[in-house]
Amino acid sequence: MSVREQGQRARKAATVLATASRATKDAALRAMADALVARTPEIVEANADDVARAREAGTPDHIIDRLRLDATRVAAMADGLREVAGLPDPVGEVVRGTVLPNGLELRQLRVPLGVIGIIYEARPNVTADAAGLCLKAGNAVLLRGSSSARSSNTAIVATLRDAAEASGLPADSVQLVGGESHEDVKQLMRARGLVDVLIPRGGAGLIRSVVEESTVPVIETGVGNCHVYVDAAADLGMALEILLNAKVQRPSVCNAAESLLVHKDVADEFLAAALPALRDAGVTVHGTAEVRAAGDRSGVEVVPVTEEDFGTEYLSLDISAAVVDSLDAAVAHIREYGSGHSEAIVTGSQPAARRFVAEVDAAAVLVNASTRFTDGGQFGFGAEIGISTQKLHARGPMGLPELTSTKYVVVGDGHVRP
Amino acid sequence: MSVREQGQRARKAATVLATASRATKDAALRAMADALVARTPEIVEANADDVARAREAGTPDHIIDRLRLDATRVAAMADGLREVAGLPDPVGEVVRGTVLPNGLELRQLRVPLGVIGIIYEARPNVTADAAGLCLKAGNAVLLRGSSSARSSNTAIVATLRDAAEASGLPADSVQLVGGESHEDVKQLMRARGLVDVLIPRGGAGLIRSVVEESTVPVIETGVGNCHVYVDAAADLGMALEILLNAKVQRPSVCNAAESLLVHKDVADEFLAAALPALRDAGVTVHGTAEVRAAGDRSGVEVVPVTEEDFGTEYLSLDISAAVVDSLDAAVAHIREYGSGHSEAIVTGSQPAARRFVAEVDAAAVLVNASTRFTDGGQFGFGAEIGISTQKLHARGPMGLPELTSTKYVVVGDGHVRP
Repeated sequence: MSVREQGQRARKAATVLATASRATKDAALRAMADALVARTPEIVEANADDVARAREAGTPDHIIDRLRLDATRVAAMADGLREVAGLPDPVGEVVRGTVLPNGLELRQLRVPLGVIGIIYEARPNVTADAAGLCLKAGNAVLLRGSSSARSSNTAIVATLRDAAEASGLPADSVQLVGGESHEDVKQLMRARGLVDVLIPRGGAGLIRSVVEESTVPVIETGVGNCHVYVDAAADLGMALEILLNAKVQRPSVCNAAESLLVHKDVADEFLAAALPALRDAGVTVHGTAEVRAAGDRSGVEVVPVTEEDFGTEYLSLDISAAVVDSLDAAVAHIREYGSGHSEAIVTGSQPAARRFVAEVDAAAVLVNASTRFTDGGQFGFGAEIGISTQKLHARGPMGLPELTSTKYVVVGDGHVRP
Repeated sequence: MSVREQGQRARKAATVLATASRATKDAALRAMADALVARTPEIVEANADDVARAREAGTPDHIIDRLRLDATRVAAMADGLREVAGLPDPVGEVVRGTVLPNGLELRQLRVPLGVIGIIYEARPNVTADAAGLCLKAGNAVLLRGSSSARSSNTAIVATLRDAAEASGLPADSVQLVGGESHEDVKQLMRARGLVDVLIPRGGAGLIRSVVEESTVPVIETGVGNCHVYVDAAADLGMALEILLNAKVQRPSVCNAAESLLVHKDVADEFLAAALPALRDAGVTVHGTAEVRAAGDRSGVEVVPVTEEDFGTEYLSLDISAAVVDSLDAAVAHIREYGSGHSEAIVTGSQPAARRFVAEVDAAAVLVNASTRFTDGGQFGFGAEIGISTQKLHARGPMGLPELTSTKYVVVGDGHVRP
């Protein structure tokens, strides 16, 4: 089936989903969860094909690990769907409402977006997560996973579709798109009018190509070149804990820190503690001359940093580091190299915190807290479809409300405009 | 100066505007208003050049009328800026806020978008309106007016820039972009990273080309193929008043009605009254066979309607018309031909109203009220930058909050993720 046909089926499903009650949607989500558990052997078997292909292709182990499904991981996917069923339904919420001076009743209601396209890489658990969130918010979804997870995704989507249908919702609420060639991604990006929004989830390259080529509106997600700025007034012990947590706790994710900025007044003291601690945690520091000199004094090797390093999201145990002359210089550095994801300051100074918060332009600005907190789960949203780094529609972790639009409803009794 | 350089200057101005206080911004808006009034002769003289050029080019009178400025119109522009100064500042509003279980303080704050590009046609009053709204919401603006209003826009922007500067804000808060060739529009559409959002205001052709070619996120505005559906349970006197108001009160605007749908049970009676009334108001009806037969019975000529008519935003004293078998058929027709702007039902039936509101997918759905009410001023927003017909970010009339994004601020006391 062509992507266009799939889009048309999705549109049709979306009109049903738009007016489906919360009870129906939640029952479908629970049925999907039960079906995933019941059909675990089938899904794990399909996944084994993907894993075998990946091995043959010489895929690195850590990618294969992300691809692999077992009964525990399938159960976790099912639990995720049950959690989504427990979240409040954003659809129908009155965002604002008033009676106008002429007596017209005006309400702005939350409504589904319609059809959402998700383009994502390796991890097959995204398939169930994304489908569940889209469905809960009343949207049909077109899922374009990577070809490396094709068998797993096919088995998961077949399971979800059957469960949706058994619950009285259209099977086409959830569809898997092609996956064999890049041509279907292109078609998805050109399906304006059929697809209301595309959300790419994955590496910087994927996101850039979708942003540049799509005529369908895109929500950019996930690239995080996050900084930790240690201010002159920082508690240096706290700063070190935050730095290590932000860099090391899970280096492969977008809210991990990629760059350290230290105020010159505390640079010697902080780096003397931080460089050995980073080394002990397995982190390679890419530093300026000042940072390297501090490394020499501590007996820690610091790699020379390049201009490119400062703009790099390593997603690994690497960090760029620089000493800055002032808060202004830190803000200017972040403005130049940051990706607008999460930026942290460690400081005991209220004026410094206030200025950093006001002047740094990012989805999340953190004071005396690790960048790792920028996360829908941590923020209490219950679930997350991604972290938007753009400014339109949604910025930061996106939960269910971010998967909706609004509609104005105006009720009169024969009102005409004078 | 290249659009790129202008974008860089705008970005720099935007960083100042982002943290400007409401007092400073309002003072600048009032200074701009005063300056427009003070420099009226200069502006009117510049406008005379545009008008003369338009005459030479054989521009139709109604376009020239929209282009023309006199002291009254300049004063109205100034009043518009003063009104914007009186509106609440959206920046800094806490959209949501909570303390997370771990003690982290989480707030979502409204922040400016940054740099907004506006691409618009003939009317030079848009120049001051758009600049005022963007500035109030803390954004720098790149204005790309039509070449036919080049002299007027140059004089207006020079006035606004001088007033901004005299008030302590950067002159580059407001910039006029090229205007001589289409090349600068293209550059604006490709200025991703420098421009945060593009808002095209004008005809369907302009909007389509911006939507298709832009890599900068776009907010689609203004195309309104609006329907009035007269339900079986309508008060037919009310229906006629609403229809006439929606079609005739100002036919050239996007919230005017372009299509009439009548339920078959009331078609004969309603059309017997409506067709002569529309004719008397100077409206040409493009109707289906049933509507034409009703016309014959009333002695009113009805032009045969084409498939294309149903999809046409006439913006003139024309209306397409069809008889439908049911509410479902009306909803299906609107789904097929509507542009998602404003759709009205006239009905005395609560279930019919409820279904129409739930099933019609548009920025505004009106019950027993004219489509002409979909308007920022009418909705009480105080001002309007346009009416979005897309679902992302903003839908319906866009006021100041729609010219902002948000930022999460997270404050802890050394919080790290376990």
